[in-house]
Amino acid sequence: MLNVKLTLAYDGTCYHGFQRQKNAVSIQEVLERTLKRVYGEDISITGSGRTDAGVHARGQVVNYYAPFEIPVERIPYALNSILPDDIRVLMADYVLPEFHARFDARSKIYSYTIDQGEFHSVFTRLYSYHLPVSLDVKAMEQASRYFLGRHEFSAFCSSKSLVKDRNREVKKAQWGKEGELLRFIIEADGFLYNMVRIIVGTLLEVGQGRIQSEAISRIIDSGNRNTAGPTVPARGLCLEKVFYK
Amino acid sequence: MLNVKLTLAYDGTCYHGFQRQKNAVSIQEVLERTLKRVYGEDISITGSGRTDAGVHARGQVVNYYAPFEIPVERIPYALNSILPDDIRVLMADYVLPEFHARFDARSKIYSYTIDQGEFHSVFTRLYSYHLPVSLDVKAMEQASRYFLGRHEFSAFCSSKSLVKDRNREVKKAQWGKEGELLRFIIEADGFLYNMVRIIVGTLLEVGQGRIQSEAISRIIDSGNRNTAGPTVPARGLCLEKVFYK
Repeated sequence: MLNVKLTLAYDGTCYHGFQRQKNAVSIQEVLERTLKRVYGEDISITGSGRTDAGVHARGQVVNYYAPFEIPVERIPYALNSILPDDIRVLMADYVLPEFHARFDARSKIYSYTIDQGEFHSVFTRLYSYHLPVSLDVKAMEQASRYFLGRHEFSAFCSSKSLVKDRNREVKKAQWGKEGELLRFIIEADGFLYNMVRIIVGTLLEVGQGRIQSEAISRIIDSGNRNTAGPTVPARGLCLEKVFYK
Repeated sequence: MLNVKLTLAYDGTCYHGFQRQKNAVSIQEVLERTLKRVYGEDISITGSGRTDAGVHARGQVVNYYAPFEIPVERIPYALNSILPDDIRVLMADYVLPEFHARFDARSKIYSYTIDQGEFHSVFTRLYSYHLPVSLDVKAMEQASRYFLGRHEFSAFCSSKSLVKDRNREVKKAQWGKEGELLRFIIEADGFLYNMVRIIVGTLLEVGQGRIQSEAISRIIDSGNRNTAGPTVPARGLCLEKVFYK
């Protein structure tokens, strides 16, 4: 069996997240159905991690075991000719049999986009959160630095999560501006459920003067979800890249 | 009666064009229905011109006569709170009673976006034409210059058009690149039916070496639609701006 690694982009608007589930269409289901048409048998994919309903990806990674070899450069074309146009396979690689898209992921980058225009742009409305208020970006940048390094992130994790070990290492956390779009980039060795969306929600509280930058350490230390800011909407979130050894 | 000028943006994907028609949802119909809810009576709008099914706008202009005064800065908020999120009113102005969005338009700018990436980006797929072939952009720039000035544009007009006077003055025609997106900007005192899409289709033939740059004058002079290139898809086209006196 050949182990195939795929890099995918998707517009998550019409999907109930990455992971297969009953009574709702997921990225995984559509991709597995497509693989079955190409290979003629059931194939399960393993993703680098889930993305929630409405969350997008520019660089999600999955792997699967193929029953026969297709020239690697033809795989994206074969799959894209069947996939709906909101999911694209960008790249395929044959990898070592032991490669595992989830366990081998060393770090991931997510972006979160905020539309600061007076009205939500019709062109980015599905890919951004509209927040037309004045924000102290300097304070938000300052606050972002408190996330860097290894921390226990319970305060920035959905209370629905069952994950035990909530230590994660944040390697990068920075804000950038492109016209009326404000974009947050965060890299970590892993993310808890809703972690990016709660971090952004908290930083936006800082930007509006409702939380002080210096309070971030205390919020992290508290381990209490209620001390952090709200969970911002899924549509602004995008899985940009997954790094492997 | 107060004459109101609105500047609109819309994602044309889900509409059968700007102009009201039977059995299909248009931008005009949705906007007039919204105005009726705000003002409590039937209101007709006049657009600067039609846009076809699937064509977008960043700066369409319309005017209508209002039965009573709403503070001008509240009009966009009043309308946007009712409009679907793929149509946004960006600005409202009270203008002279004789202002007419179509007759008074002095010139318009359209853009046309081409996605040159190997696979059509899931994020710009609704707003661009995917053409993953190598293009001689220098030749396309050179060819674009032949459109400048006043010409009879029958060769670049849908054969379905009934318009008699096909003289138009092109004031600007240039190409730009942003990452994998190639963008054509054209300004003219008016446009014929499908004119931008046929001009772009012809310039893309030049970019692929199937038409010589210098042939553009002859194609214009021929007045024959069959000598020009194909009509490129609507999704890449966007009405950027309408200029008035």
